[in-house]
Amino acid sequence: MPDAPPSLDTIRHSTAHLMAQAVARLWPSPPPEFGAGPVVPDGFHYDVRMPRRLTDADLGAVEEEMASIVREALPVERVVMGREEALAFFRDRGQLLKVEIIGSIPEGEEITCYRQGEFTDLCRGPHVSNTRELPLAFKLLHVTGAYWRGDESGQMLQRIHGVGFGDRKALKRHLAFLEEARRRDHRRLGKELGLFHFEDAAPASPFFMPKGAFLYNSLVGFVRGLYRRYGYEEVVTPQILDSDLWRTSGHYDHYRENMYFSRIDGREYAVKPMNCPCHMLMYKRHRYSYRDLPLRYADFGRLHRYERHGAVMGLTRVRTFCQDDAHVFLQPERIQEEIGELMEMFFLCYAHFGFGDVKVSLSTRPPERAGDERSWDAAERALREALEKSGRDHRVREGEGAFYGPKIDVEVADVLGRRLQLGTIQLDFLLPERFDLRYTDSDGKEKRPVVIHRALLGSIERFLGLYIEHTGGAFPFWIAPEQVVVVPVSNDAHMGYAREVLARLEAAGVRARIDGRDESLGYKTRQIQKAKVPFMAVVGDREKGSGGVGLRRYGEKRTESLSLDGALELFAGLAREALPPGPG
Amino acid sequence: MPDAPPSLDTIRHSTAHLMAQAVARLWPSPPPEFGAGPVVPDGFHYDVRMPRRLTDADLGAVEEEMASIVREALPVERVVMGREEALAFFRDRGQLLKVEIIGSIPEGEEITCYRQGEFTDLCRGPHVSNTRELPLAFKLLHVTGAYWRGDESGQMLQRIHGVGFGDRKALKRHLAFLEEARRRDHRRLGKELGLFHFEDAAPASPFFMPKGAFLYNSLVGFVRGLYRRYGYEEVVTPQILDSDLWRTSGHYDHYRENMYFSRIDGREYAVKPMNCPCHMLMYKRHRYSYRDLPLRYADFGRLHRYERHGAVMGLTRVRTFCQDDAHVFLQPERIQEEIGELMEMFFLCYAHFGFGDVKVSLSTRPPERAGDERSWDAAERALREALEKSGRDHRVREGEGAFYGPKIDVEVADVLGRRLQLGTIQLDFLLPERFDLRYTDSDGKEKRPVVIHRALLGSIERFLGLYIEHTGGAFPFWIAPEQVVVVPVSNDAHMGYAREVLARLEAAGVRARIDGRDESLGYKTRQIQKAKVPFMAVVGDREKGSGGVGLRRYGEKRTESLSLDGALELFAGLAREALPPGPG
Repeated sequence: MPDAPPSLDTIRHSTAHLMAQAVARLWPSPPPEFGAGPVVPDGFHYDVRMPRRLTDADLGAVEEEMASIVREALPVERVVMGREEALAFFRDRGQLLKVEIIGSIPEGEEITCYRQGEFTDLCRGPHVSNTRELPLAFKLLHVTGAYWRGDESGQMLQRIHGVGFGDRKALKRHLAFLEEARRRDHRRLGKELGLFHFEDAAPASPFFMPKGAFLYNSLVGFVRGLYRRYGYEEVVTPQILDSDLWRTSGHYDHYRENMYFSRIDGREYAVKPMNCPCHMLMYKRHRYSYRDLPLRYADFGRLHRYERHGAVMGLTRVRTFCQDDAHVFLQPERIQEEIGELMEMFFLCYAHFGFGDVKVSLSTRPPERAGDERSWDAAERALREALEKSGRDHRVREGEGAFYGPKIDVEVADVLGRRLQLGTIQLDFLLPERFDLRYTDSDGKEKRPVVIHRALLGSIERFLGLYIEHTGGAFPFWIAPEQVVVVPVSNDAHMGYAREVLARLEAAGVRARIDGRDESLGYKTRQIQKAKVPFMAVVGDREKGSGGVGLRRYGEKRTESLSLDGALELFAGLAREALPPGPG
Repeated sequence: MPDAPPSLDTIRHSTAHLMAQAVARLWPSPPPEFGAGPVVPDGFHYDVRMPRRLTDADLGAVEEEMASIVREALPVERVVMGREEALAFFRDRGQLLKVEIIGSIPEGEEITCYRQGEFTDLCRGPHVSNTRELPLAFKLLHVTGAYWRGDESGQMLQRIHGVGFGDRKALKRHLAFLEEARRRDHRRLGKELGLFHFEDAAPASPFFMPKGAFLYNSLVGFVRGLYRRYGYEEVVTPQILDSDLWRTSGHYDHYRENMYFSRIDGREYAVKPMNCPCHMLMYKRHRYSYRDLPLRYADFGRLHRYERHGAVMGLTRVRTFCQDDAHVFLQPERIQEEIGELMEMFFLCYAHFGFGDVKVSLSTRPPERAGDERSWDAAERALREALEKSGRDHRVREGEGAFYGPKIDVEVADVLGRRLQLGTIQLDFLLPERFDLRYTDSDGKEKRPVVIHRALLGSIERFLGLYIEHTGGAFPFWIAPEQVVVVPVSNDAHMGYAREVLARLEAAGVRARIDGRDESLGYKTRQIQKAKVPFMAVVGDREKGSGGVGLRRYGEKRTESLSLDGALELFAGLAREALPPGPG
């Protein structure tokens, strides 16, 4: 029986060695020192310390050398070394990072290396048995900096990133995906479309320019539409609150590292990282009967959470953002019903934004937890039954719930098939205890409500980042900051009619402008396509004569003749998507 | 020729002495020590240190004793004392606060006292010459605490507040005004109507409950409507920014005492007290031609400004708020036109909220100032001409402009005739310098834009406080959090029809609910009036039969029969006021 073909992980790992060997051959003196070279999703990377500052332009030569080594068909041998032998071996070859790694291998553990030709690497394996087994289906992507052992105060190495697959076709597919992802990168589109930018004065805190702010406010407006339908009440709460409140809520003990503090009048205050404690205070302010519940407080309050410089990313990981979060205060026996409504709202919302392949998971009680077993039993059963009723499959993550209650996570796929975590529903037995919340039940007794924390889009900032990538910046009509650009064929002959058209569009609430620059129609068309405006309305002699417009949709080549009334009707229909679909 | 009657100020001042004398008579042992007793708008107060904790219930007795002293017709004599004599006089009588005051009178200044009967007070005067000249037209209002000499770390005295007038009719009028102001007090109505409250965890930082948040968001929405019409673009900017930015803007040097700071990653950041520096950064990000100007950035960013505990008040003076502020970047020669549009927007806005008697003032260059004389000349002329063109009178406040530019303030009167400062337009020559802002003019040269800071409502929080008092909490239909309450005459017989009515109302976007409690129609009517809901819609046999509603407006006794369609049409008309009136 022939050997099973090497697994993709083995191929990627061996390709990382291949790359290291190629680098060592190309720049032999002084010998490059290698750090760690792990397999990662779709490929591998390898960290290296060397005097030459590698650039992306160097990667072609490395790839060629890698291909040579494959053609050399070098056998790959596993070598077991004693600890002292290994230390001496790598020290002699100037591989001080490897020496450090060996130092952290527990005593008694076997130390193995893999040797191919002149190159020997400290490694657990497994690997292919000959370099010729490696398919020429890899690609080196770029070089970045990386801290040695992830320590931000430590030294910076160079990290070469690559992808590798079982065959050229799979590689090609993946490179096309990467190119598409790059084209859709929200940081790139944010700049190109003038949506947002960052300034050094406020790291990881976006400045939304007018079009970005429009999108931002439109997302908030859409969620408000859902709130009206599902019985949420919006509140507005302070952002800077006494540390004692954060002690009561538990954030001071468990989340302090991510919070900003300020001293005022001798008291310590924290900038809020979450809205929950504000809503607990609001609930506590009044007395409730079971008839008043569920009470649903929604808040678009600005939150601040410290994130390490290395952890932030565009809009998707920032230090300041708004969650579309809400807290539902309810009787424990109402959990199932409430979760059912929540799932309906979630599904409706994600479908509206064109996110598909919704996957739901239920995380159950962890070993260490607050609350009694009866509450957990009831809550988990309620969640499970609600999910079953919603008609969606769900995965159970045993023991992965928070210590204060079980939770539901909802994940979707974007147009490139990437999985995105969006909604969260988190039951909480603990905060009602900590804040001593009560309501009077139908039997006249005082009881504790359950609190549900839930976010629908997550944070507006992050969702906008994801949505920019999902749409590639070609936003649907209802949310496009600019919906129509009116273009007179000749500024001299058609500007009057163009203004008439614009006035009608604006009166109908369409966000439109005239492009009246002294440029060719072809130039303007390209500009409008680049700006991804949903419609271009061309007006020339024919349109002026008939009282119509020549409409061209974004991404289409064809221009359609419509009466102005017809166009207005079309736009009105598209604009209705600003409200969630369905009744009421 | 008889003496001129005493001025109102003299009457009030002498009445303050009258009050002090009465207090000293009522609680003679140990002798109350008096601090300062100045005249204030509409009356006077006097600070006193005494063991008895005075309550409002004591004030009747004081008033009676004051009336007695008036009837005793005591002559009031002016007595000049030497410094040592005065010190000894007041020390002997246990008036240690007066002793302290004498100590702060500059050497060489005459020390005068006024004596009436057994009571002698240190005072500059003037006073009436006999207590019988004092009209029995005063009223003691309440007792509060007051720091001795305003020093919050010093000792607390008791302050008795009173009002005084020339005759009983004027007093009565004023007391009616005070009662009306008390009835409309936004802190009281905020509680009664469930709009907002405060928590110790966040001093001077309002928590807006659902109805308050609705009003809040509606004000923002209204201003956004004006922005669309007047060509403003909304942006969303960070709240926590590096102190270096505040050094560039000048806030760090001139406003630091009112700012909150936090250290992050070894850098000092400030929570923003104003939006301007963010907008300067945004402007700086791009290159502009004169064709791109004016550029108008509006921002509803949450601001934080430290205010002393003693200075905060309800919603009108808080530590956290949103301004409806905007920054206009423009060519200096466009100032007049821009101010003209701003005035139009201001007048339109204030009229919409029912604020009348708009008064405009123009504050011109102060002795110390930035910018050259030519810029000041041009700017002041532009402002003056724009104001003249607007057809409104304006008052000139010579020398009262900011050091960085002239400004326009707009004041209105509320329904009680109280003057309120609302809008501000502030020209700024300095920030464009400090941030080195530029644009390319039509002559191809790089020039500095002027910046206009302007706020329309001021802060949303403060405006809401004023507007609650202006409307007495009886909000117009368009902004009322709850617009209609449907009341079935009999829950048994009419609930079905009530639900039908509710569904029609909700489908038409009316904010309505059914009051289906088991209470009498009279009780519900009173509750709905108390909640100041604009309309109550009664549905009984007649309405059910005819497909109508019995509509009763807030504050009216009459119920009007309308078809449901008629009512919907009425509501639709009223709801249109949510957008600013006029074209476009």
